Amino acid sequence: MTTGNAQQPHQPVPSAGLRHLRPDVKAMTGYTPGEQVRDCVKLNTNECPWPPSPNVLAALRAAAAESLRLYPEPRSRAVCQAAAAAYGVSADQVLIGNGSDDCLTIVYRAFLRPGDRIACPWPTYGLYDTLATLQGAEVVHVDYVPQGTTWKLPATLAKQAAKLVIVANPNNPSATLVPVAELRQLASELDGVLVVDEAYVEFAGDGASLLPHLDRHPNLIVLRTFSKSYSLAGARLGMLFAHPEIVAQLMKVKDSYNVNSISQALGVAALNDKGYHRDLVRRTISERARLEAALTAFGWTWPDSAANFLLCEVGPRAEQIYLALKSAGILVRWWATEPLRTKLRITVGRPEWNDRLLSALRELHA
Amino acid sequence: MTTGNAQQPHQPVPSAGLRHLRPDVKAMTGYTPGEQVRDCVKLNTNECPWPPSPNVLAALRAAAAESLRLYPEPRSRAVCQAAAAAYGVSADQVLIGNGSDDCLTIVYRAFLRPGDRIACPWPTYGLYDTLATLQGAEVVHVDYVPQGTTWKLPATLAKQAAKLVIVANPNNPSATLVPVAELRQLASELDGVLVVDEAYVEFAGDGASLLPHLDRHPNLIVLRTFSKSYSLAGARLGMLFAHPEIVAQLMKVKDSYNVNSISQALGVAALNDKGYHRDLVRRTISERARLEAALTAFGWTWPDSAANFLLCEVGPRAEQIYLALKSAGILVRWWATEPLRTKLRITVGRPEWNDRLLSALRELHA
Repeated sequence: MTTGNAQQPHQPVPSAGLRHLRPDVKAMTGYTPGEQVRDCVKLNTNECPWPPSPNVLAALRAAAAESLRLYPEPRSRAVCQAAAAAYGVSADQVLIGNGSDDCLTIVYRAFLRPGDRIACPWPTYGLYDTLATLQGAEVVHVDYVPQGTTWKLPATLAKQAAKLVIVANPNNPSATLVPVAELRQLASELDGVLVVDEAYVEFAGDGASLLPHLDRHPNLIVLRTFSKSYSLAGARLGMLFAHPEIVAQLMKVKDSYNVNSISQALGVAALNDKGYHRDLVRRTISERARLEAALTAFGWTWPDSAANFLLCEVGPRAEQIYLALKSAGILVRWWATEPLRTKLRITVGRPEWNDRLLSALRELHA
Repeated sequence: MTTGNAQQPHQPVPSAGLRHLRPDVKAMTGYTPGEQVRDCVKLNTNECPWPPSPNVLAALRAAAAESLRLYPEPRSRAVCQAAAAAYGVSADQVLIGNGSDDCLTIVYRAFLRPGDRIACPWPTYGLYDTLATLQGAEVVHVDYVPQGTTWKLPATLAKQAAKLVIVANPNNPSATLVPVAELRQLASELDGVLVVDEAYVEFAGDGASLLPHLDRHPNLIVLRTFSKSYSLAGARLGMLFAHPEIVAQLMKVKDSYNVNSISQALGVAALNDKGYHRDLVRRTISERARLEAALTAFGWTWPDSAANFLLCEVGPRAEQIYLALKSAGILVRWWATEPLRTKLRITVGRPEWNDRLLSALRELHA
């Protein structure tokens, strides 16, 4: 139908539409996702090294033509119910997003008007800033306080007159964990909303999550993702937990059909296979310990990791090592910005991938 | 890991977080998607009545664990390339969204600051308004002009000092088509950007799309969807076509991984099976003609349909008929608002579904 080949030269003139763009959008740099290269040892974007649950793959194979033909259930109710059962909350405290990035976007759009302020400890996940720019909001960075082998939450974080305070816990890219008691204190002190992004919390051991305390803090929003411990980064699924009245308001802001039917089915299957999930987490933690033991040989240091990656302090050769690893077919994450220029973020991979990384590093150091 | 059952009463206090919400968000009513009821004849949300291409189902079955484990390709490049080949444009003129609703959201966020204005002919797709409220933008409705058996574009549409003018073509819910020449004229006159939402254009026959004219109008954005003629509403896939410079800016605004890996694979498979797509469109148009012939028996009228649905003028009994059909297991769309209160929007279904609809209507009229 329609079109066919237009037989016209492309891009005949610069776009007249450009001058109607929001100036702040035109001026901004987009968020740069980690490189998505295939055919290499990929230790740069903190995915799970093992495949998702066999239940998930069975759900994928079982997906019927009807679930593609028809619109998805708009509120992902089945996933909400499975999440409620898995995490001990009620289904009306859950919102499912097209990745937890979508959950973040929904929160920003619901709470922030241009000129409103968000605050986060720094350095952290760069997307928090990108989304603020998109919303015309002001960002305040308050530096983390390195202390011993961890990073402490800055004491002034609660005093920034911010509508939203966002803390990744464990933090990305440092992998450090702030104790639950400190975050509860922050939530209580805050005249605003506290968003705790728990993308990596399963790797932090028991008692690290704020979810069991959700009912005590009506200004608290907790985010979880299927992209890390559930091995479903490709499915785009995130969970938001909050007071039911907050969830009801956020539902108005999300795209009406924000999560596709297949991903909804996969999410339910993943949540229902608790044993496999526990096993993925256990294997990751055990492999993290082995990697840490081996990396000490290079004289590198890193803050205590409560996540599935390490932020290694490697000194002024960081970029050089990043590039050498890349040409050896091993991708890790390096940022050109301070205070990360001298560091490499390394995802815990499968044992054989970590071995390749260690061999390559030995060669570089030899 | 984490949590377990919290053993606390839920919802102990009203949420303190609520007062931090944007007042315009708190005040707004969310967009109400059409009812998604299973186990009924579903003629209310304009899905395709037949399943997607066998190629699509093969792509679904072939999806590997790795495509779930890893992040998706952030820009959906394979889909962009397949779309470029199918529609005779270049790949850098294409952006893929998580449904065309996502494409609309991206456009609104890129162009509109609070107080900016959008205009659209009215009545049309309700989501255009919802998204404007979310963006703090002002909406101007300019009434369509019923003329003979169609609805004409209001002459004053270009004169609203709007940054964005949005026209669904064919229009939803009227199914009426505005000729390409009129839209090109509008694009040329406009001091702003023209967005033409071509969700249903395949059902309008050859020469109805603006895509072959994209290169002549640098302030033009064209939207397409996989939810209708490709029978992939459940996959959430939409396409945006525009000048490469516009597309590059919009890429900064979209969520970094907005389209999941499985849907990307399904989109490529659907675009590559042109024969099946053509057949779905042909069958829909032929069944639309049969339905129209049968409905004249009830004395109903409707504007000329260029889409896969009819907007029937049924008089003051519209709600009653809607409810009677619903209790007979047949869902059509009815709105309580003017000027739609006396109308029913009926999706063209499979032959046997349309027969059930016609039998039920005969019983109601008997």
